[in-house]
Amino acid sequence: MSIAPGLLPEGLRDRLPPQAEAGSRLLHRVIVAIGRHGYARVSPPLAEFEEGLVGRLKSARAQDLLRFVDPVSQRTLALRPDITAQVGRIAATRMGHRPRPLRLAYGGPVLKLRATQLRPERELTQAGAELIGTDSLAAVIEILRVAIEALTVAGVTGITVDLTLPDLVEALATDVLPIAADKVDAVRARLDAKDAGGLKALSAEAYLPFVAAAGPIDSALAALRAIPAGQALGHRITAIEAIREAIGNDVTLTLDPTERHGFEYQSWIGFSLFGAGLSGEIGRGGSYTILNPDGSEEKAIGFSLYIDPLVDNGLGVVARNTVFLPLGTDPAAGAALRAEDWTTIAALSDTDDAAALGCTHILAGDGPRPI
Amino acid sequence: MSIAPGLLPEGLRDRLPPQAEAGSRLLHRVIVAIGRHGYARVSPPLAEFEEGLVGRLKSARAQDLLRFVDPVSQRTLALRPDITAQVGRIAATRMGHRPRPLRLAYGGPVLKLRATQLRPERELTQAGAELIGTDSLAAVIEILRVAIEALTVAGVTGITVDLTLPDLVEALATDVLPIAADKVDAVRARLDAKDAGGLKALSAEAYLPFVAAAGPIDSALAALRAIPAGQALGHRITAIEAIREAIGNDVTLTLDPTERHGFEYQSWIGFSLFGAGLSGEIGRGGSYTILNPDGSEEKAIGFSLYIDPLVDNGLGVVARNTVFLPLGTDPAAGAALRAEDWTTIAALSDTDDAAALGCTHILAGDGPRPI
Repeated sequence: MSIAPGLLPEGLRDRLPPQAEAGSRLLHRVIVAIGRHGYARVSPPLAEFEEGLVGRLKSARAQDLLRFVDPVSQRTLALRPDITAQVGRIAATRMGHRPRPLRLAYGGPVLKLRATQLRPERELTQAGAELIGTDSLAAVIEILRVAIEALTVAGVTGITVDLTLPDLVEALATDVLPIAADKVDAVRARLDAKDAGGLKALSAEAYLPFVAAAGPIDSALAALRAIPAGQALGHRITAIEAIREAIGNDVTLTLDPTERHGFEYQSWIGFSLFGAGLSGEIGRGGSYTILNPDGSEEKAIGFSLYIDPLVDNGLGVVARNTVFLPLGTDPAAGAALRAEDWTTIAALSDTDDAAALGCTHILAGDGPRPI
Repeated sequence: MSIAPGLLPEGLRDRLPPQAEAGSRLLHRVIVAIGRHGYARVSPPLAEFEEGLVGRLKSARAQDLLRFVDPVSQRTLALRPDITAQVGRIAATRMGHRPRPLRLAYGGPVLKLRATQLRPERELTQAGAELIGTDSLAAVIEILRVAIEALTVAGVTGITVDLTLPDLVEALATDVLPIAADKVDAVRARLDAKDAGGLKALSAEAYLPFVAAAGPIDSALAALRAIPAGQALGHRITAIEAIREAIGNDVTLTLDPTERHGFEYQSWIGFSLFGAGLSGEIGRGGSYTILNPDGSEEKAIGFSLYIDPLVDNGLGVVARNTVFLPLGTDPAAGAALRAEDWTTIAALSDTDDAAALGCTHILAGDGPRPI
């Protein structure tokens, strides 16, 4: 069966003008904004040994891999579904000797085996920043500020940051609000589902107040403060208060202290990013640990975002003044116009049609004249 | 057998700071410069149906494909070894109805099955421009000017453009300097090898003067003018003279009229691009035909270049003024410095070491102070 010309595999697509340029522009803006905060760019390859990549991916993502046998190395390679894992590898190996905290930035395409209902594309452009060597409160605040700035330069407005405390239940379960080890996962799942009945059935009534402590930051904090759960919770409340103080005036903050889905591999803090008029999450991040080759672990925090939903919503498109250069125009005149921020389209024959070619102006004796 | 942590497959590599940023910066500069001439960006996917991609690739490149079976479509996909073929597909299908001449630009990673001795990487960043709907002399001159400007903004100096006339022998062989159809390929091969003895053995002595007509543009043109080969050659001489007139003052021009190797799929003109201090070809292009879905053909001309050899030669690295923000610095002060083109690195703890983190300055009461 032959394939119709121009048909592409499911989940893969061409970006045409002006969206292709918008995507390129947004990625550039985001990477430049992240770089201004001292995050140095790294560019890992599109494919790696499957074994190495799987070892560093959160296990849920290992199912996302597009694999192939490399005729040269005779081994199975995988296309990266995510750049974070590669940045972790670089931080742990080739840049393992660099002073900490190590700030790294990245941006480029990723390829997934399957699309999701939320995002039908299998190829996406991911960008982000990783801060390696600490997951302190100061580090969290810096990463959140950088993420907010990256979204802002990309044109996102009405930013909401959804905070969560991924290992909170784990921390409380062994101490102040005990749960049998074999029931911790079930309690987490019921908390994720906001299922009060399920929590009661697990005799985990002590966790019921956390269901109510989800929502806008102030009410969530108030609800959390009322829960008698000792230092493990108290330290986290103090941290969330400091985050609120640092960025609460710039964005809308919400808190769901026991949300766990999608944050399974995050340590003490995780967050999702949303923007006005943009459906679904546009970025996420949190604290985690990197495994070093010697078996030791290193704390880290980072975020990543996808450029595609921003482009799909019309961000990054810039209207250009485009001037048609009639046949015989001095090349120097074209160069001068380009230096003044014009786009030029030069006539190549006397049948070239300025308007059809998208020009907004035609060069006349006295300069560009609107069409 | 397990793989050492951090080991990458042959031909795939990490770009670290500052080269990763240099690569990103050069790609951006090149794409922006091309865009200024009215070339609109398109972004085709990293992978396509193998069948569709092979049909549009020059056959030599079909051997370069990394293939895999896509579990979703149950078909063989191939990673693109070249973006030009994809741009041709877009021009012929999704943008087939757009007015001509159609100007398209592209930039992104490509993946090849095998490295070459000249370039050990299997993943490269390719960028370029395609002008679709004409391969006239005016189109050639525009494409050459855009290519030269793209290299110039990337920091390449001492640019040499090597011109060739890929279908010249074919044109002469059926007419003014006849060769039997079954000997044309052999004559071309001997001309490529500059093998005078081989040409004599093929009774193709009439082509001997072309061997001598390779070299600097003026002497090559003088030698060509002395060859009695009618209009087919005369038209091409006139075109080369016009190209010399248009760009001969900006770059070094050479001509090898019968060079064919690597230009098998180019029509009347082809060119290679070189830069001072850069080993080997850094870009190439020429005229060609695009196959439309209805079987018709369309003339086109374009060029592409690789960012990697430029980065490997140190181009694109920009020294940054990086200022360390001591603990407690007002975030607004950091933002103000970044707006003034500073890179900032904020202290996250009192053990952070400004010099070790690569800072050139420390923020003091009166502003950044050199370390």
